[in-house]
Amino acid sequence: MTDKGIDITVFKGSPSGKIVASTTHKDSLKPDEVLLKITHAGLCGTDLHYKTSGIVLSHEGVGIVQQIGPEVTNFEIGDRAGWGYLHNSCGHCDECLSGNEIFCSERAMYGFSDVDQGGFASHAIWKAGFLFHIPNEISSSEAAPLMCAGATVFNAMHLYGMIPTDRVGIIGVGGLGHLAIQFAAKMGCQVVVFSGTKLKKNEAMSLGASEFYVTENMQALEIGAPLKHLFVTTSQQPDWNCYLNTLAPHAKIYPLTLSADALTLPYMQLVVNGITLQGSICPSRGTHVKMLRFAALHHIKPIIEEFPLTEAGIEEAIQRLENGEVRYRAVLVAENDIAGKSK
Amino acid sequence: MTDKGIDITVFKGSPSGKIVASTTHKDSLKPDEVLLKITHAGLCGTDLHYKTSGIVLSHEGVGIVQQIGPEVTNFEIGDRAGWGYLHNSCGHCDECLSGNEIFCSERAMYGFSDVDQGGFASHAIWKAGFLFHIPNEISSSEAAPLMCAGATVFNAMHLYGMIPTDRVGIIGVGGLGHLAIQFAAKMGCQVVVFSGTKLKKNEAMSLGASEFYVTENMQALEIGAPLKHLFVTTSQQPDWNCYLNTLAPHAKIYPLTLSADALTLPYMQLVVNGITLQGSICPSRGTHVKMLRFAALHHIKPIIEEFPLTEAGIEEAIQRLENGEVRYRAVLVAENDIAGKSK
Repeated sequence: MTDKGIDITVFKGSPSGKIVASTTHKDSLKPDEVLLKITHAGLCGTDLHYKTSGIVLSHEGVGIVQQIGPEVTNFEIGDRAGWGYLHNSCGHCDECLSGNEIFCSERAMYGFSDVDQGGFASHAIWKAGFLFHIPNEISSSEAAPLMCAGATVFNAMHLYGMIPTDRVGIIGVGGLGHLAIQFAAKMGCQVVVFSGTKLKKNEAMSLGASEFYVTENMQALEIGAPLKHLFVTTSQQPDWNCYLNTLAPHAKIYPLTLSADALTLPYMQLVVNGITLQGSICPSRGTHVKMLRFAALHHIKPIIEEFPLTEAGIEEAIQRLENGEVRYRAVLVAENDIAGKSK
Repeated sequence: MTDKGIDITVFKGSPSGKIVASTTHKDSLKPDEVLLKITHAGLCGTDLHYKTSGIVLSHEGVGIVQQIGPEVTNFEIGDRAGWGYLHNSCGHCDECLSGNEIFCSERAMYGFSDVDQGGFASHAIWKAGFLFHIPNEISSSEAAPLMCAGATVFNAMHLYGMIPTDRVGIIGVGGLGHLAIQFAAKMGCQVVVFSGTKLKKNEAMSLGASEFYVTENMQALEIGAPLKHLFVTTSQQPDWNCYLNTLAPHAKIYPLTLSADALTLPYMQLVVNGITLQGSICPSRGTHVKMLRFAALHHIKPIIEEFPLTEAGIEEAIQRLENGEVRYRAVLVAENDIAGKSK
């Protein structure tokens, strides 16, 4: 970054859905900011909702620190760093003061308060306090999907009382689901997986599932002992009538994906069985750090497909995600970092 | 009770909705059972769902112990005793062993496994372990509505993390709502009440509310500081779009009434704000006992209308409840106990 600032190449969606490269100019680095050269960035289902808007896509970014402001003490030039959905908060509202800065009341609703920066870009400038060190055990390419998908499933499993003796269900084996299986299994839980077809059974079992049920054309679900927690990782809502019958009293349901739909559940069973429906999103920073350490300790890694971080690469990745073909998370890689050069 | 057993007069609904008296014969008292002469029994909104079925109505019963089985050590003849929704459980399933006997897996789904007994009757025979002593501070007539309505609101406020520094909302000032205001206020919370009209404002404020909002014809709700907990005590579902905007991140919503409807909520706000939708029903015994002690200590009492415990009295009470006229809970009183003779 020179005295004239820096021109950052960014990739945004457009009304036609085509990916368009443009330039964001940043004049200078503030004292508490870090300039990253982005090497890897994950594609999330949420990006599909924004592909026709004008914001920079991807909130699963990983890169190399190129420059730091004079007040930055937690990063050095050359460090690897990543960020997720949370990259800003005020630091002084009730939520921030309680360690819940994901809910900062001054933060823009969906975390996209800076719509001119994102993971699909050459560089990004963020406050040092909202960047995470990448543990040595995790490559930059594998780290990217942990920044949102991994963080989302871990947050739900960490914050709301799931314990190792619990029997838990995971609906869907995709970007979130294949990480949810790994996290839950390494937390000691018995992991019951539900998937539309039998295609992903072997992979689910190898990731840590104890049981696997095919739900295509199902009329009812018979799974033996009931579930204490049920994580919904599919973008479509499941057949609640079937799933409610698999739950123990006081069980918790976590819808982990975003949808503009209404959420419609059978009322009576929810109340009579004391069921909790728990909204849960990406973690605040304290939980995000625990997620990265836990993943490093237990070798939890996303299964990824890499694409070049170019207009064509992004469009191809989006196309495969929309077709349900990605196994299981797409990562866009800056061209001179392809083949793991970043680690 | 003689060697020939006892004939108990019971009041059931019927297909036409008319209340019909009939007789249940009980041969003998088992060693762990208690025979109660019923003096007071509350009418609950749930009874309306059952008024055309053939079960004995009322699950808010209070009476005087008339006889005890040889193994009963916790009640004596002449004691006052009450029961609620829970009057049986196996004692050995996982839920019972964990103190969650309201969810006993061997218990019939809706707690009406004995459809030939209930509160609207001359007598009842229950296991001693499922009867509760009525504290001296509480009259039998006031105790009856605590057995379900009071227990239901207390259970939700006690089990799921509500603390005295919380700002809480209560939708509806009726049988449950007017007790919810009192319990929440005595627990130290700031209590925000929502009601269709301004008719009940003075009463709500005198029961402990801090703020009162009229919701008839509302387009949006502006209540200042957000709510941490929201108790829905109305039988109809509220306008969720308005209420979700009153909630703090990580707030909890408790739908406390039963409905055959689907529960339909905006998906996005629930997930993005980490909202909990908490199903909650009547308490297990440990919590029920705490509810009675707390009500006695803090002089929490239902406001009641009394009716004679006869076919005509029950029909009149049901009519007033269906018209939304009861202020705030109907109690049916055995004829020789009218005017508080039972205490």
